[in-house]
Amino acid sequence: MTFKQPAEPTVQPQPSDAEIALTHSLLPISDIAERAGLPVSAVIGYGRNKAKIDVASLGEKAHCARLVLVTAMSPTPAGEGKSTVLIGLSDAVRAAGQRTIVAIREPSQGPVMGIKGGAAGGGYSQIVPMDDINLHFTGDLHAIAAANNTLAALIDNHIQQGNELRIDPRRITWRRCLDVNDRSLRNIVTGLGGPAHGTPIETGFDITAASEIMAVLCLAKDFADLKTRIGNIVVGQNYDQQPVFVKDLQVAGSLAAQLRDAINPNLVQTLGGTPAFVHGGPFANIAHGCNSLIATNTAMQYADIVLTEAGFGSDLGAEKFFDIKARAGGFDYSAVVVVATIRSLKFNGGLSREELNQENLVALEQGLANLTRHCTNIAKFGQTPIVALNRFTADTSEEVALVKTWGAQLGFRVVETEVWSQGGEGARELADAVLEYLESHEPTNQPLYDPALGIEASLNTIAREIYGAAGVQLSGQALKDLAYLKANGWDTLPVCVSKTQYSFSDDPSALGAPTGHTLHVRALRPRTGAGFVVALTGDVMTMPGLPKLPAALNIDVDDEGQISGLF
Amino acid sequence: MTFKQPAEPTVQPQPSDAEIALTHSLLPISDIAERAGLPVSAVIGYGRNKAKIDVASLGEKAHCARLVLVTAMSPTPAGEGKSTVLIGLSDAVRAAGQRTIVAIREPSQGPVMGIKGGAAGGGYSQIVPMDDINLHFTGDLHAIAAANNTLAALIDNHIQQGNELRIDPRRITWRRCLDVNDRSLRNIVTGLGGPAHGTPIETGFDITAASEIMAVLCLAKDFADLKTRIGNIVVGQNYDQQPVFVKDLQVAGSLAAQLRDAINPNLVQTLGGTPAFVHGGPFANIAHGCNSLIATNTAMQYADIVLTEAGFGSDLGAEKFFDIKARAGGFDYSAVVVVATIRSLKFNGGLSREELNQENLVALEQGLANLTRHCTNIAKFGQTPIVALNRFTADTSEEVALVKTWGAQLGFRVVETEVWSQGGEGARELADAVLEYLESHEPTNQPLYDPALGIEASLNTIAREIYGAAGVQLSGQALKDLAYLKANGWDTLPVCVSKTQYSFSDDPSALGAPTGHTLHVRALRPRTGAGFVVALTGDVMTMPGLPKLPAALNIDVDDEGQISGLF
Repeated sequence: MTFKQPAEPTVQPQPSDAEIALTHSLLPISDIAERAGLPVSAVIGYGRNKAKIDVASLGEKAHCARLVLVTAMSPTPAGEGKSTVLIGLSDAVRAAGQRTIVAIREPSQGPVMGIKGGAAGGGYSQIVPMDDINLHFTGDLHAIAAANNTLAALIDNHIQQGNELRIDPRRITWRRCLDVNDRSLRNIVTGLGGPAHGTPIETGFDITAASEIMAVLCLAKDFADLKTRIGNIVVGQNYDQQPVFVKDLQVAGSLAAQLRDAINPNLVQTLGGTPAFVHGGPFANIAHGCNSLIATNTAMQYADIVLTEAGFGSDLGAEKFFDIKARAGGFDYSAVVVVATIRSLKFNGGLSREELNQENLVALEQGLANLTRHCTNIAKFGQTPIVALNRFTADTSEEVALVKTWGAQLGFRVVETEVWSQGGEGARELADAVLEYLESHEPTNQPLYDPALGIEASLNTIAREIYGAAGVQLSGQALKDLAYLKANGWDTLPVCVSKTQYSFSDDPSALGAPTGHTLHVRALRPRTGAGFVVALTGDVMTMPGLPKLPAALNIDVDDEGQISGLF
Repeated sequence: MTFKQPAEPTVQPQPSDAEIALTHSLLPISDIAERAGLPVSAVIGYGRNKAKIDVASLGEKAHCARLVLVTAMSPTPAGEGKSTVLIGLSDAVRAAGQRTIVAIREPSQGPVMGIKGGAAGGGYSQIVPMDDINLHFTGDLHAIAAANNTLAALIDNHIQQGNELRIDPRRITWRRCLDVNDRSLRNIVTGLGGPAHGTPIETGFDITAASEIMAVLCLAKDFADLKTRIGNIVVGQNYDQQPVFVKDLQVAGSLAAQLRDAINPNLVQTLGGTPAFVHGGPFANIAHGCNSLIATNTAMQYADIVLTEAGFGSDLGAEKFFDIKARAGGFDYSAVVVVATIRSLKFNGGLSREELNQENLVALEQGLANLTRHCTNIAKFGQTPIVALNRFTADTSEEVALVKTWGAQLGFRVVETEVWSQGGEGARELADAVLEYLESHEPTNQPLYDPALGIEASLNTIAREIYGAAGVQLSGQALKDLAYLKANGWDTLPVCVSKTQYSFSDDPSALGAPTGHTLHVRALRPRTGAGFVVALTGDVMTMPGLPKLPAALNIDVDDEGQISGLF
């Protein structure tokens, strides 16, 4: 989940995100598809102003686009506006004459009912129709949940009907999921009520974005790959503590069939009329945090420039984008933008949320250590990042000058953006910087580590190189898990670290750029369908709860079906 | 759930339902909409060959259609083919020059993964695209589940955040739901794991079709009515055993917003090209078993003839269609078709499933008692039913003659249909009979009982008049429930009997036309959003399980996204 950019005008009061989005005249989705260069025959309307692209009908086509990744410094409650910058940048790049396609994640509906704020940009840099995108959209997450929960039912039914595979009910690792924030579903017991109603089992629900089916859908190349990956999912162990796979249950085909439409990218548009694939939304802490590979591939087959993002900062989404997604997809990336704000820098420099509106060059200077780490991290993947300094009203010229001086000293170009109030116009300079960069730099695909050296080596490399840690410590459970991984040949899979987004360490309160810390790994979970191993550090919540005053209290629909209160 | 008509050819071997459906060339959905007389501006494409109708944009319009209800004798494992007859009949009525719209329920996906067979007709009388309709369709059931489960999360969150309404966690009646067959979810305990993860509560999941949100959606007239009904749902009791409503939680608007698209009818087509609204699917045993009122109303505003159905026989779906749906909607119905088969009649006459292929006039004669009861039941609602005798290969001419003689004696017209093998052509005579009937009979809206006389009177009337019972017995719990209903003024709501579909009594093994039995009511549940009281008799399962060899084992999707194994 990301923090929404606070509604602080940079120049003058402006309408709310919802007012801007709902009063905007959208282009027909067929025009947007044409603008993206997509053949009409592959564009399937899905409600008003939304379409799915029938990828299987497109056929083979080489990549022709340069891919730009937008990431950010460590997220703070102050808000960075990563998606907002990406969307404004896309409109600016398109205005500069480039055929542009955005490829980003689709939001979870659960949090929409909880914390006020959607997940499709903000101000004049939004993706629309925002009400649809935030509520059900084209049904992808519901389809993923249906497949996920059908699998859960099939596992329990297998046990109920004789348990030929000798599945140990105590060792089922497959959990159910729903796209809802519901803390009461985290830890549950199912199968109560006697023998006709199943076997009592301790289990729980995750939010759909945390399901391995989501990760699988987002890394699958096509239907065949989807089925293979689903078949390779481990659902638990048998009484000999050997893994039980979905393929053992012989239901990979029926689960993939439930994802037939969900696998196709969703096409919508930015307020500036740039085509946008909003497709797939795996959690960036528990999973790899990137939109679907199919959406990225399709965009790269039709655009000049593709703009994509990865969840949270360089230590989470971006690292996984390079080491998991780009590795699995085998595609090149050509530029990286790191979004930062003066407020977030000061927060990382030790200020409280209440102090952020006051100029503080000392805190800013200290907070720049965080941005430095993110930028040098990106350089390790073969790209020199461009820093987008996303402006807020309270920023002073001295503060801005300090960040620019920092960039000049370290060799990182710093470009101001005002996308929230100005849309694409506010990212014109950033677009120029990105296009200039692309002219003089080659695409790369340069992962950080070689998974063949084993999970421990991979973890050590990520911890030292990206997190600034002194080393990695595996708990007793993690060591047991490692033995299980090795016994099954899974210790050479890429690693997906589940870590707090607030710090480079596993301690969310260690802001800035901590060094010398130890990364504590408490468990290692095989995600053999997705094709990685999740390393759990700290407590990462896979099912959020609702706040005291949930956003659901404000959401309404009028007699004409117009939804209000989403923002 | 209904039994699928067995794949027994009436004339010669024919392709499977799936082969017929998937090789059929569908008309563009815009042509279907035009055929239905719907304005282009209200037709929103939803994937290939599917659309939703934006009802709010249609404006007020008087009913111009005559409504024909298709119901059936008591269902048996032999199969009756009620939907198949309805679909074939619609094609025949349209071929006779009538502007025709079908309005039927949309299927549940859970059973599709369990028992082989979909729910969109069969043979050459199907609704297409059948793969879409059986899997996710336009997402209505997922949207209903999302609203249902958001409400569950909001209830638990209210308790977690201070419990201002003093909700008693032991007396929460609101359950979660999923469109999956999963016996392990029937009885669960949620909220385990300590204070940060909620309050431990005994609860469970129902299949989505059994959710009160589904019943509410299907009885709502518009968005305002939808919100009022959702607000009126009782979710449990407080510590004073007073009801707690959704409106007390102030979330009716946000739940309705989640149903903004789901409330709009889905437009698809029959194999014969007749427009079909397939919308809403409440269980016919636990709820009222009819498609949405909005779909029926919309169809009646645009067609000459609207064909609709209600779940199971005259004792369940049809009775509820007349007494709940038509009463709530205030619309008239003009004709009723009762579907019967010789196989089902013989099964009701005491034969086993294995004996049904042999001629047996004695069993047939005995089984006709069942059909007589259904026909005389229909007469109590002001209509003389037409009997559609849906032919199977093994039927002998003597058996057919016997049914015709029975009809002649009792004054019920009996018309043979061969819709499975011949499509609309096989219902031509039935169409003529229906159109003739419409010419000489007036529309009626004649409910059986007056709810103002109280639940006990309503139950007694239904039990005696429709079920042939001697009377009704309320259990101790039901008497307690009745006192609660009376205390809250809910005992004058219509009653929705939850009863086995196999018998007129509450004993599923009492086939034919039992008399003199007692209807045992074990509980009375307020459904104040839907606007009825559910009377539970016997054990009615609200969450099905999967069989030993679930259909999921056979379902697959190929490289082009073509789904197989659905039938």
